[in-house]
Amino acid sequence: MVDIATRVWNHKWKIDPIVRSLIDTDFYKLLMCQSVFRNSRDTQVTFSLINRTTDIRLADLIDEGELREQLDHIRSLSLTRGESTWLRGNTFYGKRQMFRPDFMEWFENLRLPDYHLEKRDGQYELTFEGNWPEVMLWEIPALAVLMELRGRAVLNHMKKFELQVLYARAMTKLWEKVERLRQIDGLKIADFGTRRRHSYLWQDWCVQAMVEGLGDKFVGTSNCLIAKKRDLEAIGTNAHELPMVTAALAESDAELAQAPYQVLADWHEEHEGNLRIILPDTYGTEGFLENAPDWLAGWTGIRIDSGDPAQGAEAAIDWWASRGEDPRQKMVIFSDGLDVDKIEELQTQFAGRVRPSFGWGTLLTNDFRGLTPHDALAPFSLVCKAVSANGRPTVKLSDNPNKAMGPADEIERYKRVFEVGAQQAMKVEV
Amino acid sequence: MVDIATRVWNHKWKIDPIVRSLIDTDFYKLLMCQSVFRNSRDTQVTFSLINRTTDIRLADLIDEGELREQLDHIRSLSLTRGESTWLRGNTFYGKRQMFRPDFMEWFENLRLPDYHLEKRDGQYELTFEGNWPEVMLWEIPALAVLMELRGRAVLNHMKKFELQVLYARAMTKLWEKVERLRQIDGLKIADFGTRRRHSYLWQDWCVQAMVEGLGDKFVGTSNCLIAKKRDLEAIGTNAHELPMVTAALAESDAELAQAPYQVLADWHEEHEGNLRIILPDTYGTEGFLENAPDWLAGWTGIRIDSGDPAQGAEAAIDWWASRGEDPRQKMVIFSDGLDVDKIEELQTQFAGRVRPSFGWGTLLTNDFRGLTPHDALAPFSLVCKAVSANGRPTVKLSDNPNKAMGPADEIERYKRVFEVGAQQAMKVEV
Repeated sequence: MVDIATRVWNHKWKIDPIVRSLIDTDFYKLLMCQSVFRNSRDTQVTFSLINRTTDIRLADLIDEGELREQLDHIRSLSLTRGESTWLRGNTFYGKRQMFRPDFMEWFENLRLPDYHLEKRDGQYELTFEGNWPEVMLWEIPALAVLMELRGRAVLNHMKKFELQVLYARAMTKLWEKVERLRQIDGLKIADFGTRRRHSYLWQDWCVQAMVEGLGDKFVGTSNCLIAKKRDLEAIGTNAHELPMVTAALAESDAELAQAPYQVLADWHEEHEGNLRIILPDTYGTEGFLENAPDWLAGWTGIRIDSGDPAQGAEAAIDWWASRGEDPRQKMVIFSDGLDVDKIEELQTQFAGRVRPSFGWGTLLTNDFRGLTPHDALAPFSLVCKAVSANGRPTVKLSDNPNKAMGPADEIERYKRVFEVGAQQAMKVEV
Repeated sequence: MVDIATRVWNHKWKIDPIVRSLIDTDFYKLLMCQSVFRNSRDTQVTFSLINRTTDIRLADLIDEGELREQLDHIRSLSLTRGESTWLRGNTFYGKRQMFRPDFMEWFENLRLPDYHLEKRDGQYELTFEGNWPEVMLWEIPALAVLMELRGRAVLNHMKKFELQVLYARAMTKLWEKVERLRQIDGLKIADFGTRRRHSYLWQDWCVQAMVEGLGDKFVGTSNCLIAKKRDLEAIGTNAHELPMVTAALAESDAELAQAPYQVLADWHEEHEGNLRIILPDTYGTEGFLENAPDWLAGWTGIRIDSGDPAQGAEAAIDWWASRGEDPRQKMVIFSDGLDVDKIEELQTQFAGRVRPSFGWGTLLTNDFRGLTPHDALAPFSLVCKAVSANGRPTVKLSDNPNKAMGPADEIERYKRVFEVGAQQAMKVEV
């Protein structure tokens, strides 16, 4: 039976929007946004798209007109009543009214600010400038749009059954991963794959497959829209942009050295329990832990987002022990470039020694590797970062020099201030 | 957008009929039926279901009430106007009005006769008795019903995403076969998988995937309903039941020895060109060819349906050569237990020496091997055959003793009459 209305409806959506909602974003963005809204709402920032996989020439693959349509569509979005109700009325991490009324009022009236787009050397230069709390909300939708438009450019050339089999293969591939994960005792895993997902519909499918296939082992999704739609926990805490912007604003090396702790001191005031998760790698995990104040050791856990994950977790265990904390009570969230082998390995190594947990990203929601000729749908490493704050460049070092960002002289200065020595370079795949 | 009408419609079909049309059957059944209608319409036959895979206890797996509902539904079917138009108006094998008006009139008024069903030793004893042209049309739908009900019994226990991934895997598996077949130069292949299909919808999917994936290499389907729906060639000629019933009716050993040729003499009168395909194995290929009249060597080709296929084709090549025919002009249709490896091998061995062609059955439309725990959806060897004619038992020998059918003493008599010596036993999988 042909559903004529559906057919007509589908035709109507000439652009088939990639981002359909302002809450089609990571939960931590909203938590951070509220924090920024309270503490630094007038800070002027620039966010910029950076494609680390330079041999994927996005400007050759993606039509500029289509890209502009998608970005313009995002600018037309505002928080719906139901979304607002969900944010105001829901319990997040066991807490009611996580989002304060003044923030919600601001959010309800928000439209995303303008963007600047041009082509350069086969890539898109896409930047967003303005007040921090507004501009920061561009990160996730901008990434999702670029990722999905690149995918669509490939899919456009495929025939009907070829397409169906492509998705059949991707489903099979994911399900085989789910079946392996199901075997892991005590696993706790969440979807962190919004920013580099193949598409919205695919992420939604992946999440539902995890719900059915993993049961309680699947703890939730970072995507608020999907969490709302599928009645799941929204997962996430904080990210590098807080220390990066704060550090850029530091007036002296001494202030710079304190910036990462200052950010967490603010966070400490606002949040408790499972939201108190340290992200230690912005300027090197080793120095960060060594110089950290004791109250940070009392936090619930740590997130390992660069460098060798086992090494990072061992460093955290040693640090907790040295500060008189019991590592077995601590949560360790692995979130960098995970796939099933690595998850199995880390769970085996750390279960019982800490409370391991996994934020599974790109290889959950975008593992189309090997499914098309020339691997044209393989995920690639695209980020959208704060590159300056009040006119000063930001810097990120991380525990992997291949993930470092910022002007060379500033990187050197940060390395000196944060006493970062030799680092092990690791390939950044996704 | 929920299509309410579709939802309600789906709920209404409590039994979700497996066979939806009297032309949801193999094309050769209709050709043979017309032949029988002309030559032997009053012959009384009994067809009986035989499950060669006895460790699959169908009566334990399939609810008797559900089975009766499906069979009763088939008895309620009659030829629709559109189906009749298609049969009357279409060109089959380049010929208009393949089906004569008197046959069509009879077919338009046909309802399938009653069935007899009981359980015995964990199996269903399902038999059909009556006039040959009516009873013979039960074969394909009866097999399709049993195969699909067994599948449904397994699928009933599966969850939503598990189901979706099951079909994703099956699609992927088939597509990988299609991608390999696409590489074979000069391939000609048809769908012969109705009788042991996983389900109607799945067969329809497989056929469409072949259309897209193989282009001209896919020459059509034996299923009339799908041929009509997808605008494809209906493929098929004749089968073992013609010589089996004719042989059973023979009044002497001499008549018996001539029966297989008598059948083809009738066929010769009715059909030409690509419909003149010899099926030589009913009582042993070797003896059949040796004793065949010369006019048979002039036929378009041969179908190899049991025994070692390469050996069968070589025998045909030798025979044609010995009768002064050019084997390179002859069609050799392989139709027994094919899968891609075998197809590749046979094409390599015979391309250029004959015109090879493939009737791909069970492992096209029902290859769910390895996709469920305990391989609960693996295909099995179910047949529905004429077991008696005018009260006399029928016999089939074929080129594989494991496919032989009939009372032991009659098998011995046939072996003697047809001079069948030692045969190589081959495992019958599907």
